[in-house]
Amino acid sequence: MNDRPDVPGELVDRRTKGVWWPGGPIPAADFAARRDRLFDGPFTWPLLVLRESALERNVAALAEFTRAHGLLFAPHGKTSMAPALLRRQLEAGAWGITVATANQALAVRGFGVRRILLANQLLDPRVIRWAAEEMSADRGFDLLFYVDSPEGVAAVAAAAQGWKGERFPGALIERGVPGGRTGARTRGEVLDLAHAVDAIPGAATVGVAGYEGPLSDADGVRGFLRDLRGDVEALLAQRGPGPGRPILTVGGSAWFDLVAEEIGGMVEALPILRSGAYITHDDGLYRRVTPYNRLPEGGDALTGALELWAQVTSAPEEGLAIAGMGRRDAGYDQDLPIPRVLRRADGTAVPADGVRVTKFDDQHAYLSVPVGLDVRPGDLMSFGISHPCTTFDKWRSIPVVDDADTVVDLIATYF
Amino acid sequence: MNDRPDVPGELVDRRTKGVWWPGGPIPAADFAARRDRLFDGPFTWPLLVLRESALERNVAALAEFTRAHGLLFAPHGKTSMAPALLRRQLEAGAWGITVATANQALAVRGFGVRRILLANQLLDPRVIRWAAEEMSADRGFDLLFYVDSPEGVAAVAAAAQGWKGERFPGALIERGVPGGRTGARTRGEVLDLAHAVDAIPGAATVGVAGYEGPLSDADGVRGFLRDLRGDVEALLAQRGPGPGRPILTVGGSAWFDLVAEEIGGMVEALPILRSGAYITHDDGLYRRVTPYNRLPEGGDALTGALELWAQVTSAPEEGLAIAGMGRRDAGYDQDLPIPRVLRRADGTAVPADGVRVTKFDDQHAYLSVPVGLDVRPGDLMSFGISHPCTTFDKWRSIPVVDDADTVVDLIATYF
Repeated sequence: MNDRPDVPGELVDRRTKGVWWPGGPIPAADFAARRDRLFDGPFTWPLLVLRESALERNVAALAEFTRAHGLLFAPHGKTSMAPALLRRQLEAGAWGITVATANQALAVRGFGVRRILLANQLLDPRVIRWAAEEMSADRGFDLLFYVDSPEGVAAVAAAAQGWKGERFPGALIERGVPGGRTGARTRGEVLDLAHAVDAIPGAATVGVAGYEGPLSDADGVRGFLRDLRGDVEALLAQRGPGPGRPILTVGGSAWFDLVAEEIGGMVEALPILRSGAYITHDDGLYRRVTPYNRLPEGGDALTGALELWAQVTSAPEEGLAIAGMGRRDAGYDQDLPIPRVLRRADGTAVPADGVRVTKFDDQHAYLSVPVGLDVRPGDLMSFGISHPCTTFDKWRSIPVVDDADTVVDLIATYF
Repeated sequence: MNDRPDVPGELVDRRTKGVWWPGGPIPAADFAARRDRLFDGPFTWPLLVLRESALERNVAALAEFTRAHGLLFAPHGKTSMAPALLRRQLEAGAWGITVATANQALAVRGFGVRRILLANQLLDPRVIRWAAEEMSADRGFDLLFYVDSPEGVAAVAAAAQGWKGERFPGALIERGVPGGRTGARTRGEVLDLAHAVDAIPGAATVGVAGYEGPLSDADGVRGFLRDLRGDVEALLAQRGPGPGRPILTVGGSAWFDLVAEEIGGMVEALPILRSGAYITHDDGLYRRVTPYNRLPEGGDALTGALELWAQVTSAPEEGLAIAGMGRRDAGYDQDLPIPRVLRRADGTAVPADGVRVTKFDDQHAYLSVPVGLDVRPGDLMSFGISHPCTTFDKWRSIPVVDDADTVVDLIATYF
């Protein structure tokens, strides 16, 4: 990956939420070098921050887990779309970066990522052709994408038509769960699609992909992983020995323990895990479902790294306070934010025990405040979040703070 | 407002969702001048577009409504945070722009807006002081903000301490609904707060504000509007004749008919309406609750101006299709997006009758497809949205298209 390709030209200006900078735009790198303090720096509320210590632990944890269990790792970049974070994941040993859309592939290629796994079917030949051109111009760049239907095969054929370049992106045949999301539903279809792609001059099937997310129990996940493994073996049997090992890639945020057991270290294929949310983890959904709850490391192996700081803007009734944040500032598709700490105007902090977010407007959160806890307008409160993907995408600039609340970086996101 | 202050320096690049531009960044103004076609221009899917004809009708409708009913209009800018749209609202006669947070005020001031109504309590004296400095440096600039508590009064006092400038932002005392959101709950508190602000050298109470959103029926809304009217009259009685008429400002997206009846044309105060969502309206929430459903103009006086175009990326089972858009692309706090049109690869379009979005992932929508409608991977589908505020904030660049699907502008948002 290039050297911080996001920073040159990246300006933080007063139109960026959370940063209070009336004096005009400054480069993000200069901003980070200021070593501002979170609570008396150039910020307004609400403000989403990343806690450096948690980020570091989380990145290291999955790097170690995948290494120890014989899995390659292509963390899902859609979670953060932040070049500074993708860079950390790659530096920790990730094989590549997964993305969800053509535009995310374009963005991530712009960040300098060298290996992109586009985890969806591409129906637009222009996008496949773009990838072929990039790969041919830069032998160190690779893109893989999904095919799950004859229409996907037709898009490959259209892109390959007349192509004279050296290289062409590889197709992963997607297998899906009946009643689930995308992906061919049977082994027969997987093999037919692979055969059809391989019949296109210049194009090739390079493996099989699946997403176990729609499954809700361990037996179902194990069964699906075994189906995928069977698909790869059938693919190898169908086409005979080839030049390289095929790929077998799966999701795994909630099930990477089973992924490790079922396909970790497999020799007939390269097993690739695509988990993304682990990088910040959270205090809601992923805290509940992380496989570490079943592993010897325990549920605390990952730490919620995203903190939303908001100001109490009103305390109009006994037991009710309103914080100045809402649907614009944090995910609300899994749980509402989880109060962590109450920080008063004098800088003293107490746990926000018993405070609950009961309702969300666009720019306001309704807090239920227990008897005995005095919450006043002007107090700050920090919140853990549930579901990093729908929180990251609400912020264009996110300060990274150390455990002493000093701002050590300011990262940009691209959504 | 300044002349398109957002455009100079505003670049559209390949890291911007929806715009497919591998060749590098170009100025937004140049992009608009290209007159691209929506379906064979430099776009990928999903893509949020604004329909020019609907936008024009909606802006004109509320400008006319407020003019006809003796209301000043400060449309809520938080809906779009798009300078190009705020400009249209001001050119149509809006008195000012409402915002929700200090940062939005800073952004909107950066866009060149001359009159800002900050519809929340400010607890940070630095922000009040900034407004005083801006107002003193530019006599054509005004900012108003809310006070609903002694802590809000203390912030005003702290900002006014030692202030030697010519002008100072005006305070609106916020009255709230019992069991509702922000705002003092009784007339006595409103009068006490007004008195306390007026006792601060340099500071002044300039009126009363309320938000009827928490109320669910017409009787409740009428009662609240009458309470607010009574508050203003009591305020006038308390302080005697002053230099200017006080302000009485209310929300009104769902109730501007009652606002017009209850406070339109009032002479003892300046009535200001703050509705924001009308600018794009929608096909869900606001279609159901718009006051036009009760007015002679009828519910069609406003038109849903936001269209989300997404590609069908998979059709893996009978009756199920997956579109490449999700929680990252459209609001889902009121309703999931509403299918409008199915556009096939050959350019033919049919109504998406009977198609429903049944579930949303981050980047995928699950579509239930009726028997007899053939939906194939690669087809495009347009969706109306429910709740513009939580849709705008997911897009940094939004093409504006005319009725022939030619791109006539590309607007930037600042969240």
